[in-house]
Amino acid sequence: MAIQAALRPFSTANRLNPSISSVHKPKTLLCRASLSNLVGSEAGVCLSVGTHFIPHPDKVEKGGEDAFFVSNHRGGVIAVADGVSGWAEKDVNPALFSRELMAHASSLVEDEEVNYEPRSLIRKAHAATTSIGSATTVVAMLERNGILKMANVGDCGVRIIRRGQIVFSTSPQEHYFDCPFQLSSEAAGQTFLDATVMTVELMEEDTVVMGSDGLFDNVYDTEILAVVDSCDNVADAAKALANLAHSHSKDSSFDSPYSQEARARGFDVPWWNPIMPMFLIRICDAFEQGFDVPWWKKFMGMKLTGGKLDDITVIIGQVESSLSS
Amino acid sequence: MAIQAALRPFSTANRLNPSISSVHKPKTLLCRASLSNLVGSEAGVCLSVGTHFIPHPDKVEKGGEDAFFVSNHRGGVIAVADGVSGWAEKDVNPALFSRELMAHASSLVEDEEVNYEPRSLIRKAHAATTSIGSATTVVAMLERNGILKMANVGDCGVRIIRRGQIVFSTSPQEHYFDCPFQLSSEAAGQTFLDATVMTVELMEEDTVVMGSDGLFDNVYDTEILAVVDSCDNVADAAKALANLAHSHSKDSSFDSPYSQEARARGFDVPWWNPIMPMFLIRICDAFEQGFDVPWWKKFMGMKLTGGKLDDITVIIGQVESSLSS
Repeated sequence: MAIQAALRPFSTANRLNPSISSVHKPKTLLCRASLSNLVGSEAGVCLSVGTHFIPHPDKVEKGGEDAFFVSNHRGGVIAVADGVSGWAEKDVNPALFSRELMAHASSLVEDEEVNYEPRSLIRKAHAATTSIGSATTVVAMLERNGILKMANVGDCGVRIIRRGQIVFSTSPQEHYFDCPFQLSSEAAGQTFLDATVMTVELMEEDTVVMGSDGLFDNVYDTEILAVVDSCDNVADAAKALANLAHSHSKDSSFDSPYSQEARARGFDVPWWNPIMPMFLIRICDAFEQGFDVPWWKKFMGMKLTGGKLDDITVIIGQVESSLSS
Repeated sequence: MAIQAALRPFSTANRLNPSISSVHKPKTLLCRASLSNLVGSEAGVCLSVGTHFIPHPDKVEKGGEDAFFVSNHRGGVIAVADGVSGWAEKDVNPALFSRELMAHASSLVEDEEVNYEPRSLIRKAHAATTSIGSATTVVAMLERNGILKMANVGDCGVRIIRRGQIVFSTSPQEHYFDCPFQLSSEAAGQTFLDATVMTVELMEEDTVVMGSDGLFDNVYDTEILAVVDSCDNVADAAKALANLAHSHSKDSSFDSPYSQEARARGFDVPWWNPIMPMFLIRICDAFEQGFDVPWWKKFMGMKLTGGKLDDITVIIGQVESSLSS
C-alpha cells in the first residue's frame, strides 16, 4: 500500500476563499471542495489536498511501487516517490525503497535541520533509508505566505494551474529515455545535490497537480486542465485524473505522451512482439548511464503506440486561505 | 534599435570555473567563453552573458519591436520585452512601449523599493511608462548565492540547461492562441500582479537561455540543447540560436513549434491565401479576451506549416564563479 501519512489530523472544515489578489478574475477554476482536507492551521494560505493511487495492473496484490505522503505542517507538504521497477529483476521488491523514503520524509517534515527546505528533507530521508533499491521523488512544501518550495529528482512531476492555464511545469531529469535520475541505495545513483530546486509564488485558488510519471506519461497537459476544470473538489479531481491515466495506460491505440516521446527518441515496441508490455523494456542499468540511448533499445525498435502501464499517483492541492488557529 | 543597457561596464576577464557542487560531472556543457562578459563583481556566482537580436525582416529599418537589457548588478540581471505588433494597426509604433519598459527597468535595477525582486522591477518600470502600446516581458535576477529570481508576463521564455538537459522551463501565459498576457498602457492589459514569479537554484556551469517568442516559436528545445552544446562561448551560442530561429522563421516547409501549436489548436493559414504571412492573423484585441479562440480565426483556418516571422532576441547567461572585488 502507498504511504498516506499526515502528521496531524486533517481539518474537514469548509472555508471560504477570498478573491485572488489580481486584477483579472479566473474564468475556469477548480471549485472549492465541499469537504476539503485543509492542510495547515495558521494564518495565511494552505493546501486543500485530494489524493488517488492506482497500482500497475500486475502489481495490485503487492500494492504497487509508488509511495506518497501529505502533511499539514505550515502551508502543507506533498510528496511522491516512484520505486524503480528494474530492481525486481534482481529479486528486490522495488516498493521497499520508495515506501521507506516517504516514511522517513514524512517523519522529518518538522525536523530542525531540515529547516522546511525540500532538498534538505530529501537529503535526510535518503540518508535514513536502509532498503535496497532506488526511487524518483518530488517534494513540495508550501509556506504560509504562498511560496511553494520544490525539489525534484527524476521524472515525477508538478503542474501549477492558474485561471485555467498551466503557469508552471517541472522538467524531468533523466540519463536517457525512460531511465530517470533516482535516489538509490547504490553509490551510482543520484543524491539531494542532483535535485532541481525551485520556488513558485502561488495565489489563492491556484491548483497544484503532483504525480508520478504514470500520470504524465499517459495524460496530456490539456487533459489535466480539462479534468481539473470539470471537477467540483480536489478529491474528485485526483480520482478522475488517476482514472484517466489508468484508462489511457491500458489503451493500446491511445497515442500517449510516453509513446510520442519514445517515437521522437527513435525507438519503439519490438517488431517480434508487438504486444510486449512496454515496462519490460524499462530496464535502467547504472552501467549504461554514459550512453544517451542503449544500443539494444534502438536495435529493438519499431513503431510504438499506446499508453504506458505503470503505478499512477495523483495529488491535487488547491491553495486556500487558512484562518488563525 | 534594441536597448542594450548595462549599469556598469562589463568585466572581460577570463575566470576559471571550479567544479560544480554535485557528485555527477556534466557530460555536455557550454564551454567557457574566452572573452566572456562577466556580469557582477562580488564573491559568489555571476552570469557570463551573450546576446543577439535579429529584427523581423519587414522591421529591419525601424529596428524591430523587441527590447532587452543586461545589468551586472549583484549576480546579474537579464530581461526581454516584446512589443505587441497589433498596435501598428492603430498607427502606434509597437517598439515604443517595449523600449521604454526596458529603459525604465534598466534604470531601476538598484532601486531600494524594487529590493532586487523581479516582480517589483516590473511594477515600477510599468508604472513609469508613458508610451501607448503593450509588451510581454520576462525578467531574471541572479543572487550571488545562485538563486535566480524570475517574473514572467506573457510568452517570452527561459530555459535552464544543466549537464546537457533542460531542467527548467517557463510556461507561456496567454488569453488564447497567439494572444499573450501583456503589460499595457491600457487598463484592459495585465500588471505585475499577473506575473508568474519563480526561483531556481542554479549551479555553476548552468546555462540560462532567455528569449522572446521569436526564439521559442521557431526553435525546439532539443535544438536549443544541441546549439548551446556546440558553441564555445555565450556570445557565439546566442548568435547561433538567433540565426537558427531566423532561418526557421523564413522556412515555409519547416514544421515549427509555432505551426505545430497552431494545428493543435485547430486553426491555420487561410485557404484563400496560403502565402498570407502569419503575422497578419496575429491581432490581439482586448475585447476578445473572453473567448478561448476568436470565431474569425477558426473560420479562416486550413492547413498551416512553416516558421513564424518575428523579432528574435536571445540572451544566454552562463553561471560562473566571481571573485571578490
